[in-house]
Amino acid sequence: MRYSKLFGKTKKEAPKDEVSTNAKFLMRGGFIDKLMSGSFTLLPLGYRVKEKIEQIVREEINKTDASELLMPLLHPKTIWNETGRWDKAKEVMYQFKKGDKEYALSFTHEEIVLDLARKYVSSYKDLPIKVYHFSTKFRDEPRAKSGILRGREFIMKDLYSLHETSSDLDKYYFEVAEAYKKVFKRMNLDVKITEAPGGVFTDNVTHEFQVICETGEDTVYYCDRCEFSQNKEITKLKEEDRCPNCEQGRIKIGRSIEVGNIFRFGTSYSEKMGVCYIGKNGQKQYVHFGSYGIGITRLIGAVVELFNDKKGIIWPKEIAPYKVHLIGLNKKADEAYQKLLDQEIEVLYDDRDVSAGEKFADADLIGIPVRLVISEKTNGKIEYKERAKEVTELLDLEEVVKRV
Amino acid sequence: MRYSKLFGKTKKEAPKDEVSTNAKFLMRGGFIDKLMSGSFTLLPLGYRVKEKIEQIVREEINKTDASELLMPLLHPKTIWNETGRWDKAKEVMYQFKKGDKEYALSFTHEEIVLDLARKYVSSYKDLPIKVYHFSTKFRDEPRAKSGILRGREFIMKDLYSLHETSSDLDKYYFEVAEAYKKVFKRMNLDVKITEAPGGVFTDNVTHEFQVICETGEDTVYYCDRCEFSQNKEITKLKEEDRCPNCEQGRIKIGRSIEVGNIFRFGTSYSEKMGVCYIGKNGQKQYVHFGSYGIGITRLIGAVVELFNDKKGIIWPKEIAPYKVHLIGLNKKADEAYQKLLDQEIEVLYDDRDVSAGEKFADADLIGIPVRLVISEKTNGKIEYKERAKEVTELLDLEEVVKRV
Repeated sequence: MRYSKLFGKTKKEAPKDEVSTNAKFLMRGGFIDKLMSGSFTLLPLGYRVKEKIEQIVREEINKTDASELLMPLLHPKTIWNETGRWDKAKEVMYQFKKGDKEYALSFTHEEIVLDLARKYVSSYKDLPIKVYHFSTKFRDEPRAKSGILRGREFIMKDLYSLHETSSDLDKYYFEVAEAYKKVFKRMNLDVKITEAPGGVFTDNVTHEFQVICETGEDTVYYCDRCEFSQNKEITKLKEEDRCPNCEQGRIKIGRSIEVGNIFRFGTSYSEKMGVCYIGKNGQKQYVHFGSYGIGITRLIGAVVELFNDKKGIIWPKEIAPYKVHLIGLNKKADEAYQKLLDQEIEVLYDDRDVSAGEKFADADLIGIPVRLVISEKTNGKIEYKERAKEVTELLDLEEVVKRV
Repeated sequence: MRYSKLFGKTKKEAPKDEVSTNAKFLMRGGFIDKLMSGSFTLLPLGYRVKEKIEQIVREEINKTDASELLMPLLHPKTIWNETGRWDKAKEVMYQFKKGDKEYALSFTHEEIVLDLARKYVSSYKDLPIKVYHFSTKFRDEPRAKSGILRGREFIMKDLYSLHETSSDLDKYYFEVAEAYKKVFKRMNLDVKITEAPGGVFTDNVTHEFQVICETGEDTVYYCDRCEFSQNKEITKLKEEDRCPNCEQGRIKIGRSIEVGNIFRFGTSYSEKMGVCYIGKNGQKQYVHFGSYGIGITRLIGAVVELFNDKKGIIWPKEIAPYKVHLIGLNKKADEAYQKLLDQEIEVLYDDRDVSAGEKFADADLIGIPVRLVISEKTNGKIEYKERAKEVTELLDLEEVVKRV
């Protein structure tokens, strides 16, 4: 992609009302634009990052034998009334009337997926069901001031599963937890699987995937030795307590960002909505139900909060919008650009007629993992530099291709 | 994909209130499920068709140098007020209040893209801008009874372009028309580019891409010799009139389905929203603006209305959910399934323990272009049959792979 043709160029300043690091760098870098408080357009660069994150999630979730579909965003009141959440979640949901009908916007999809599933489930042979989608969620957040971390409109991957028994649900629940670990690892995120309260979703304990980050909104109490972690909202521990799990480590307190969560509802929803199946024993039983979320657009924000320096973003390799950022300071760059494209390498090529200094500053702000420079000084070779390192090297094109 | 694991099996009956061919076959085949009037879940099979259509559109639109992004669905009243469409489109828009703010759901994105663009345009050097997204549209349709052809919630590809001059806009407008022709051709659709009124979008004449189909809601007057076509709503012609374009053909009347449309707005929107640039002459000028839509979910319905027989759907090759439908009637089918997967062929494998008759009927209903059968009778070979033809052949696996 020629940077001269890209929509969404870098800006010197971010809007004054955006205080978070993610909003500042993502807006200045041309990844997102703010339509209104808590609502952002994903510009072409940001859209590419979103697509890459989704593809990682898709690959790992597909391995659990789940199928991708797409459920609607506009929901009838009648279905939300079946579980009582039309009233229970009134503050966070966008609800309205048009003509003589009442609607809500998708703040989540449990009721909708169960309404769907009950049309297809009659026997144990129809179970398990594992379906997911990437879709828009709407939540009227009172505190929408953390950039893309907490939007009124955002993109989630939500997966739902229906099973015969509680132990089938448990088994899949932990399979999804493992899939999530792989997802976050591929994005260079070190997550703590944290016991947490269920909010308007469930009274049961749930698990959140929390990334330690000093600018996070959550607080977790975690062990410095083992994987134990609890959300502040349910813990009874204090800092430096002995870990109740491994009995060796000490409890530390950290600010964190929730990037995923998983819920076991048991039969609570299926009882309210009458989602039954005839079991092997010939008896009618309620399905066991779970749901599993990953905040896709929130992940973009979390990664930026974690991986940045004074100059800008430092994208992890797997989700960077392009693999290399080519800076052309003489006409030979055009040729190298074409050669990189021929090798099917994703290149952002700064072909603008602006100063070298401006191009370097923009490359640091945008944060693509590898920067290549071609100028009179590079003398037929290419200057190679990783965004996270200071050292530069002069390489042949072949060597560059090999490394990328 | 093993059919036994697929969510959304075939059904013997479609709901009584769905009268359209597309709704009946798509619901019976397990492609879509109805949440409420005019609102459908894309089940895994339907989701795959949607993805394939989107990929065709993406490929052809990218060739026009447009960039993909994603704009929000929830819009502030203030922006819609700038063009007067908050009031003008009140009937079709979902508008509501939450707290002290007023919102609308995306019924289209002209205002939103111009609000975005005006933050990035100051000089002629910033033009042209060509951006598009695949996103959800919401329209409160009084007559939502044509299945997925006319939804209250549906998916559109909408492309927007901003230019310096009227002739730049014209040039791109016809470039997009050519790209659209390629898109529809790849889906085996023969479209008529039809002059039409602009509705709540513009007072100018626009062009619709209409597919002749006897169950369509629109009516076009077209020439039986040349490409001339006009929407009934603006034509002054009668059936059998001489064509005013080629002066040789005769005018025919046909029912049709609108699958795309393109609009040239000139400076009408940019004047209202103050979208200006400083031209080469140093003077401030308004940008010339166009928008271009393709109804993605509507296309799924249109294709089914056009390509079907009594038994079910007959998908065009490029957008079929799978390339082949493998029916296993003995245990050797497992092996062939694995071999087809190894060749990276997209296979739907009916591995269920049901009768051959049921499997054949389901294959015809689902409508994948090629059916393969493995049974005792096929004697180590594979029975090959195209959905659109009656003839069957016995082939080796290698020959099957070659043909697919």
